Amino acid sequence: MISLLMKRIALLTALWGPPLVAQASIAGDWQLSHKQLSNVGYYMLHIDQSGDKLTGTFGPVKLTGTFRNGVIEAKSDESGRPGTLTATVKGNEMEGGGEDEEGPFTFTARRTSPKTTAPVSHQFTPTEFHHYFTASIRPALHINAGDTVHTKSIDASGIDENGKRRTSGGNPLTGPFYVDGAWPGDVIAVKLIRLRLNRNSAVSLGRIFSSALTPGYFRSAKYDAKFDSDWKIDSDAGVARLAKPTDRLKDFTVELKPMLGCIGVAPREEQSFRSGSLGPFGGNMDYNQFGEGVTIYLPVFHPGALLYLGDAHAVQGDGELTGVALETSAEFSFTVEVLKDKDIPGPRAENAQYRMASGIANSLPEALQQATTSLAQWLEEDYKLTANEAAVVLATSIRYDIAEVVDPFVHIVAKIAKSTLARIKP
Amino acid sequence: MISLLMKRIALLTALWGPPLVAQASIAGDWQLSHKQLSNVGYYMLHIDQSGDKLTGTFGPVKLTGTFRNGVIEAKSDESGRPGTLTATVKGNEMEGGGEDEEGPFTFTARRTSPKTTAPVSHQFTPTEFHHYFTASIRPALHINAGDTVHTKSIDASGIDENGKRRTSGGNPLTGPFYVDGAWPGDVIAVKLIRLRLNRNSAVSLGRIFSSALTPGYFRSAKYDAKFDSDWKIDSDAGVARLAKPTDRLKDFTVELKPMLGCIGVAPREEQSFRSGSLGPFGGNMDYNQFGEGVTIYLPVFHPGALLYLGDAHAVQGDGELTGVALETSAEFSFTVEVLKDKDIPGPRAENAQYRMASGIANSLPEALQQATTSLAQWLEEDYKLTANEAAVVLATSIRYDIAEVVDPFVHIVAKIAKSTLARIKP
Amino acid sequence: MISLLMKRIALLTALWGPPLVAQASIAGDWQLSHKQLSNVGYYMLHIDQSGDKLTGTFGPVKLTGTFRNGVIEAKSDESGRPGTLTATVKGNEMEGGGEDEEGPFTFTARRTSPKTTAPVSHQFTPTEFHHYFTASIRPALHINAGDTVHTKSIDASGIDENGKRRTSGGNPLTGPFYVDGAWPGDVIAVKLIRLRLNRNSAVSLGRIFSSALTPGYFRSAKYDAKFDSDWKIDSDAGVARLAKPTDRLKDFTVELKPMLGCIGVAPREEQSFRSGSLGPFGGNMDYNQFGEGVTIYLPVFHPGALLYLGDAHAVQGDGELTGVALETSAEFSFTVEVLKDKDIPGPRAENAQYRMASGIANSLPEALQQATTSLAQWLEEDYKLTANEAAVVLATSIRYDIAEVVDPFVHIVAKIAKSTLARIKP
Amino acid sequence: MISLLMKRIALLTALWGPPLVAQASIAGDWQLSHKQLSNVGYYMLHIDQSGDKLTGTFGPVKLTGTFRNGVIEAKSDESGRPGTLTATVKGNEMEGGGEDEEGPFTFTARRTSPKTTAPVSHQFTPTEFHHYFTASIRPALHINAGDTVHTKSIDASGIDENGKRRTSGGNPLTGPFYVDGAWPGDVIAVKLIRLRLNRNSAVSLGRIFSSALTPGYFRSAKYDAKFDSDWKIDSDAGVARLAKPTDRLKDFTVELKPMLGCIGVAPREEQSFRSGSLGPFGGNMDYNQFGEGVTIYLPVFHPGALLYLGDAHAVQGDGELTGVALETSAEFSFTVEVLKDKDIPGPRAENAQYRMASGIANSLPEALQQATTSLAQWLEEDYKLTANEAAVVLATSIRYDIAEVVDPFVHIVAKIAKSTLARIKP
Repeated sequence: MISLLMKRIALLTALWGPPLVAQASIAGDWQLSHKQLSNVGYYMLHIDQSGDKLTGTFGPVKLTGTFRNGVIEAKSDESGRPGTLTATVKGNEMEGGGEDEEGPFTFTARRTSPKTTAPVSHQFTPTEFHHYFTASIRPALHINAGDTVHTKSIDASGIDENGKRRTSGGNPLTGPFYVDGAWPGDVIAVKLIRLRLNRNSAVSLGRIFSSALTPGYFRSAKYDAKFDSDWKIDSDAGVARLAKPTDRLKDFTVELKPMLGCIGVAPREEQSFRSGSLGPFGGNMDYNQFGEGVTIYLPVFHPGALLYLGDAHAVQGDGELTGVALETSAEFSFTVEVLKDKDIPGPRAENAQYRMASGIANSLPEALQQATTSLAQWLEEDYKLTANEAAVVLATSIRYDIAEVVDPFVHIVAKIAKSTLARIKP
Repeated sequence: MISLLMKRIALLTALWGPPLVAQASIAGDWQLSHKQLSNVGYYMLHIDQSGDKLTGTFGPVKLTGTFRNGVIEAKSDESGRPGTLTATVKGNEMEGGGEDEEGPFTFTARRTSPKTTAPVSHQFTPTEFHHYFTASIRPALHINAGDTVHTKSIDASGIDENGKRRTSGGNPLTGPFYVDGAWPGDVIAVKLIRLRLNRNSAVSLGRIFSSALTPGYFRSAKYDAKFDSDWKIDSDAGVARLAKPTDRLKDFTVELKPMLGCIGVAPREEQSFRSGSLGPFGGNMDYNQFGEGVTIYLPVFHPGALLYLGDAHAVQGDGELTGVALETSAEFSFTVEVLKDKDIPGPRAENAQYRMASGIANSLPEALQQATTSLAQWLEEDYKLTANEAAVVLATSIRYDIAEVVDPFVHIVAKIAKSTLARIKP
Repeated sequence: MISLLMKRIALLTALWGPPLVAQASIAGDWQLSHKQLSNVGYYMLHIDQSGDKLTGTFGPVKLTGTFRNGVIEAKSDESGRPGTLTATVKGNEMEGGGEDEEGPFTFTARRTSPKTTAPVSHQFTPTEFHHYFTASIRPALHINAGDTVHTKSIDASGIDENGKRRTSGGNPLTGPFYVDGAWPGDVIAVKLIRLRLNRNSAVSLGRIFSSALTPGYFRSAKYDAKFDSDWKIDSDAGVARLAKPTDRLKDFTVELKPMLGCIGVAPREEQSFRSGSLGPFGGNMDYNQFGEGVTIYLPVFHPGALLYLGDAHAVQGDGELTGVALETSAEFSFTVEVLKDKDIPGPRAENAQYRMASGIANSLPEALQQATTSLAQWLEEDYKLTANEAAVVLATSIRYDIAEVVDPFVHIVAKIAKSTLARIKP
Repeated sequence: MISLLMKRIALLTALWGPPLVAQASIAGDWQLSHKQLSNVGYYMLHIDQSGDKLTGTFGPVKLTGTFRNGVIEAKSDESGRPGTLTATVKGNEMEGGGEDEEGPFTFTARRTSPKTTAPVSHQFTPTEFHHYFTASIRPALHINAGDTVHTKSIDASGIDENGKRRTSGGNPLTGPFYVDGAWPGDVIAVKLIRLRLNRNSAVSLGRIFSSALTPGYFRSAKYDAKFDSDWKIDSDAGVARLAKPTDRLKDFTVELKPMLGCIGVAPREEQSFRSGSLGPFGGNMDYNQFGEGVTIYLPVFHPGALLYLGDAHAVQGDGELTGVALETSAEFSFTVEVLKDKDIPGPRAENAQYRMASGIANSLPEALQQATTSLAQWLEEDYKLTANEAAVVLATSIRYDIAEVVDPFVHIVAKIAKSTLARIKP
């Protein structure tokens, strides 16, 4: 099959004409999309060049070969995943194919260019809202790493800041934002630099979910179907109060602590999850510490990451016990940075006080295990701690938050104070 | 069989001789111990008297009868648990028997006297330490409700403040303290008014338990068997530091936050649990908020409650990840109050900031359910909230702490700020 | 907005020209697709006609109105979900719109026709294989209820019966099959009438997953990276044996018990799940009783149901402990029946001996709860049992199988012998 | 402190007078009870003797020393747990003390004698019944390994075969039986050679526990408080039927399959658990395969093991869904064998068809992990399988039973057919 591939590549070369600058350097980093069987893989291709000889790394694979007349001919490491490939380079783009033990493959690549433009601010007014975390929705806006986006979100039931229904309920999302330069294998850092509620009402529910109650209480709880759990938001006073309070809750106010329930990227491969779901891609994490000032780290699974945000809560207790918080609309601003070639098992975050590692899993025991492990590994990576050292640091200083227990998966956060970490010799 | 019982009672009456004050009032509250088959039950017997007629309540049972010549003859409510009983009263004591649908029974009772003595302070220096929460250990000290006890505890491995081994390891406990007036069905409030570490060292462990780590991390973690996890306590500076720190942790200090890992009463019936266990009786709860100033509420299952305390920690992160915290010895002072006829599903607590309800269960999901439910019920009881009202209060304001995940049962605490509760109309 | 809708409908009417048979009856059942905001809903529309008056039910909604000159004008029940609609009928198709409290909507409908054709047999040779359960893949074959399909599947790693790689690994699926007449709200009954392995090899793995082992065993287990866990299948003898057995397993044979690991329909809405996932839609259920002779009931979420099958196992123990069974290719035949307006919470099944109800959930406790409840409800529906009666029947006669514990969700089956059910008065 | 100990030993020697046979051999095995601080430990002491020199093993400790004039003087291995001890031997008994790094200790030991008596049959009619698994109850009968006991049990509510109440409810137990020769560190094999119901009625309950139902079903289930769930047992026909059946269950019969719900030994140390509890000591395991013909292996924690049995069920579905099965009285016969120095993590069992390993744990996931691991280890021990070999055997052939989900801990059994094991080369 390789001969056919080679023919196709030759044909492409012919179509593109002779390379403009045959002697041009191809050294540097390329974002590479690889297709083999039904699998699409994304890698960074790094090339070093010396005359017409080249060496490179292609994902986990090492390459050696030549670059002559605009054509790369290379083979990959015998000890790793042996194979051969040929590619035609045209400026900052490359197209090619090859074969290895898994069979023939094709690929395209594009040279990463150092970002030369200064960061810009985008004012983005969403007109469409989405109900899935998926790579199959066309980006709403392309941004560069370092850019700032000023935008807004409607509430979980689809109502905007003017009380107008804009779409169906179920956590409609703003985005997706395509982050230029974000490539699978990277991490994006989303910093929420501003988050303000933009209306004076919120909706909620008046029953705690069965997952947070003993079966006995749940069986016998007497709920009033007419109980009104709508809220008034008084942003000046910084509090919410029930819109139609019962006598006993007439003076009951809650301090506003705005947060975004949903921050996530497109999940791995062709999966599509409802905007109420969560996972390694972030999503509907419903953590009441994800407010103004937080930076959230998310793994990138698709070119551009495809970032979605929404589901503002005016305030939410731990666990999101009624399945919803004080659901409202908001305007917010965020910046995105790209951290190249970074591997994180799931969402991490930090704010002025804490480093936070998320465990998002099928059950609370598994979520706690993931959260502790992710935080331990973070310390081991950044402070070069051994497993014993991480153990004594965490055993004395870890704090857990139970973010939510009512969505398709549960979310526990393990955190440690930055003031504690400051006492570790870096 | 009733006739034999009656004979026995008659005999007792004979032995005791004629009642000293036949006309004496028997009205009031009596602590009653009831034996039927192999069951021992404890109840409060309340008697109202009018001439020689009496009415009463005997646990859930209503009584009507007579009191003549020092002898009670009564029958219990047809609609409840029909039966008859006879008893001989001698001063503030009573002995009797009867029969109901479960068969014959005997009982003794003792009149509760209004505590007239002023609270006293006890200086108690323990000489023996115990490794079980059980009713089968003889009380170390009798105290009255309101009294203060100044005492101390040795560390979890059995070493005292002078570095001397006093007993085997495994959370040796100080006590048990018999609280006069505490009767099954009551609740005791143990206020920890002072808690101070009394030596300058603590021991810990350098490995996180498997229950808090992903299996993958646990399988591959490289632990150094020689890692030294002993600590120095610098009470003046208010910190602990590793006694023999690795280079990277040379400057690592942790702020002291002393707490007692074990506070519990004798568990229900003839059960005996290791001092590492926990349950509705409290026990090895290992919650890092159980420090100076906290008041802990525990249900009473046995006359006198039989309170045990110990297992001081200099500081402990959430979850008690290595299975131990910074284990050390301490001196502490506490008072005990008795709350009559109070029903709580398990430990509750409060300090200056929070009301706290414990969920102690087989798994984190169940512990969370118990904790939420106990807190909801506490609000419903004290603030007369409906289930809907409790739901909106908790959904906005609940906080969870994961107290520990490494003991025979896990412990989650649901808490709510007192400043929030102050906004509910009582 | 309604006037625009009306205009559009009028336009459509104009385009279609005058209805061919104005007096035609529109009474009967229509499959209706309803779009409002971003929600697509599927309903059965039932119409009764009397002169030019009509009444109907439209999902949960009751309609009354007129049918004149090919145009329906109707309004829905005040007490339910009040609204109005207009539609133009053309033969067995209908197109219209309306408005209710959720806003304007449009819909199309198609009359269900009694199936008049005799069931046919389809010989279907798959050329493409799919890695997702999703409604976004075009049907591979349309079949009618009652038809039989003879087809085959490749193994979980993408290798076919000739040892040839056909696609990437990860449970590639045969299908999807569009079942004419299956409409959301129905249930399909897939009967696996034949299942035969069609090659003499299978692959497996030689390590048990961490979810089935204690952390201590998992940490210390010494696995040999070179252990060969390929199998030979001897269909004549009805057994499998290791292809390159260790000395101790030289004579170790396992009786073949072929099963399909994957049987599922497109999941609700626009969700897309990897073919390794499972849920209410069935999917990668990995239950070793889903072999020849079983009938599996699956809920329908999309028109045509979109049925996928694959992932044959030569034999599999409970739990699928190594994450894979004896993975191989197979040929199989199945029939599909459509059960109209049937509501099941998730997969159910039956074979000659048992009724089986699946619990597919995040954790074993939840899976067990779902399985028990689904089986209890099945008995309550089919035998009109009360909750007490179901309790005594199940308490004496239920059996559980732990189908698998290594996929994204776990699967427990609750089952009861048909011979036991035969003793209940229907 | 050692000098005091030595004085005490000297005193003892004095009191006992000179050893009768100074030259006597002390070689062989001794059952040794060791007390240090508050810990009591039980070990086997093995002594080899050569002239007046001796070597020995004392639990994990190696000894070398001398035996002269009836007095042992020995020291333990420097590399293990260094220490010294002295003991005075008098016939088949020994008393001594010593000191090691944990401090001073004392011990007594008794020579194990080869059992020379032929096995006997005991007819044991219980007069007392116990509600705890504990070492603090005096043995009801001493038996030798190999003996057979014919006895009986009353039902879980305390009613005997004549319908007479004998004690309170809650699984009253027959025993404890002291098995001569069973020593901590051994395993006993209890073979249930006969189990017959001895009355014609059973009681049960008509509601499924919340742990086996979804919260939604549990909240809305309509239970009739008057539903009668008493059963008639027809031993001749081999079936049970409801005593007062509803119309629909008039012909509903269940085949009898008698089992014992409770088989357990005294748990480790001074713990005392209600007879409804279960653990490594066995206990209320409620497994419907523990009927006539089964052999159950239990670890020994106390001298004599202290075996308790009871809680006969006429028939029970998996999980014991209503919290009780068909509870009745029974007569049964069992033999006990002692397996010396055997280490099992919890109960194991076998019958004609299967080897079975119990996982008794806080939650279903943990119980499954324990059961799989215990079965894997059993195969590794008995068949010298590697972890890979055990994995492929279990992955193809394991079966799980969910024994019960309603007691303080849950119980899952992992089992494998003996016919499968017969194909492994031993």
